[in-house]
Amino acid sequence: MSESTMPSEAGVHAAAASIAQILPPTPLLPVEIGGVRCWAKAETLQPVGAFKIRGGWWRLSNLPENERARGVVAVSSGNHAQGVAWAARRLGIPAVIVMPRDAPKVKLEATRALGAEIVLYERPGEDRDEVAARVLEERGGTLVHAFGDPWVIEGQGSAGIEITEQLGAQPSRILVCCGGGGLAAGLALACPDAAIVPVEPEGWDMVGQAVRSGEIVRVAADAPATICDALRPDATKPINLAVLKDRAGPCLAVSDEKIRAAQRFAFSALNLVVEPGGAAALAAALAGKVAIDASTVIMLTGGNTDAESFAKTITDL
Amino acid sequence: MSESTMPSEAGVHAAAASIAQILPPTPLLPVEIGGVRCWAKAETLQPVGAFKIRGGWWRLSNLPENERARGVVAVSSGNHAQGVAWAARRLGIPAVIVMPRDAPKVKLEATRALGAEIVLYERPGEDRDEVAARVLEERGGTLVHAFGDPWVIEGQGSAGIEITEQLGAQPSRILVCCGGGGLAAGLALACPDAAIVPVEPEGWDMVGQAVRSGEIVRVAADAPATICDALRPDATKPINLAVLKDRAGPCLAVSDEKIRAAQRFAFSALNLVVEPGGAAALAAALAGKVAIDASTVIMLTGGNTDAESFAKTITDL
Repeated sequence: MSESTMPSEAGVHAAAASIAQILPPTPLLPVEIGGVRCWAKAETLQPVGAFKIRGGWWRLSNLPENERARGVVAVSSGNHAQGVAWAARRLGIPAVIVMPRDAPKVKLEATRALGAEIVLYERPGEDRDEVAARVLEERGGTLVHAFGDPWVIEGQGSAGIEITEQLGAQPSRILVCCGGGGLAAGLALACPDAAIVPVEPEGWDMVGQAVRSGEIVRVAADAPATICDALRPDATKPINLAVLKDRAGPCLAVSDEKIRAAQRFAFSALNLVVEPGGAAALAAALAGKVAIDASTVIMLTGGNTDAESFAKTITDL
Repeated sequence: MSESTMPSEAGVHAAAASIAQILPPTPLLPVEIGGVRCWAKAETLQPVGAFKIRGGWWRLSNLPENERARGVVAVSSGNHAQGVAWAARRLGIPAVIVMPRDAPKVKLEATRALGAEIVLYERPGEDRDEVAARVLEERGGTLVHAFGDPWVIEGQGSAGIEITEQLGAQPSRILVCCGGGGLAAGLALACPDAAIVPVEPEGWDMVGQAVRSGEIVRVAADAPATICDALRPDATKPINLAVLKDRAGPCLAVSDEKIRAAQRFAFSALNLVVEPGGAAALAAALAGKVAIDASTVIMLTGGNTDAESFAKTITDL
């Protein structure tokens, strides 16, 4: 498979088999929403606190032997950073991660603790892809894109294989927090019979717009602020759109207020710490934006949040 | 089995088989403590947020048909309350729960939401066993003791059967948050080859004192305050001591400060919400009070905590 090759259902199964060797399945927890018992997939309980460990592992473990010494470069606000850094450490591959200076402290520190070198950039202002291109030019190495990469998509999709095993059947519907569309695309391949419902922050719903129009759409320069630091890429990639355009829908958007309410619900009803971007799918479910049934799965995609902001959210300050 | 009968290893296996019919196993999550990877059993992810659902279910589902209509009475600061209320609702048995007025709001509300009738008492001041005796005298029904009951002990022990299945072998050692000693006794029966290490709040270590002296010991009237609302019974019961006296050790005690540090660790490293009493075993591990190895299991026994106090703990206010 080359970088321009499309990810496949067979590839997702191969990724799932590889990941099962190193990581236990994350729990699928029962959750009651509006009187209906459905399921929450707690990717927050991964060793790096987010599903991104899956794609990082599958991409890096497929890196040819002769490319490993030059290392990898990733751009991420924090969860992909940790996923790549975790896999790199385990495989003995040097990793440079380009991160925004305003990323949550907890994500910067965790990435550093995993042994990765961090290069900071200013958001907004500097173009993160330009910073990454400069690092690649100066040092060489392989870019590991956060979502527009076939191995990354297949790796993320391994969560869907686990869900199918845990339920004993494919879910009817998967509500998935959506940044660039890597996880959503992976789940679409993993669970061909399931409806895929991407949920984005209001004003940042460029995957939804792309799916509806069939064209890549960029987030508006004057998009409103969002608390979802993990769901802020500017545009999806052709590889993600190609998978999602006939599979995703309805594509939903939720407000910061609904997301904070979902974080409070996860705290009080599930005893789980979920970061804003990890609670978008749950927010859509709690807000009644999509029908829920007994085999609906809600992805809780990440839980890496600073104590101060989480404390404010749960006490509703 | 009568109330004076001793719980047994076979009984724990029977309880585990019954509980497996209604509740998925709670996750056994990898956790790194001082460079050693061991395991955390996340009972915080039970539907009532604590392991008490196990003992409640096993006790009530063994209640003879002709005693069910008269209902059950339990005394609890909150987690046993919810465990009994959950089982009672599912089995259609009326439940009255005697709870201290200073129990965490979240526990009072959750117990009420499960359909139980709540009778409040003042702590300190009123004797909770006297309040329960009065309720029993007035209305009849069966007392479901929080720890001094063979079915409750066997039910709690089902967690140890799950752990053994999840590890593929009995753990070397189980660190367990300890109130009256119901869970510790159940785990001792479930895992006869494992060391059982009860962890109590400083000044409330009456199970440890009882194990060392061979006699029931009461908590001193001037015992210091503790944030562990779930670990404050006055004394263990003969049935618990009989199981634990040759099995438990070392018996440890931890400070409120260490417990809050453990809650912060669970928040940041595991993305889990753990209540003070549920973090005692983790606190002992983090403080280096006992050796940890790759098959050591740390019980995270409960996660029911008010948002305000949790927010203060994680921001270290």
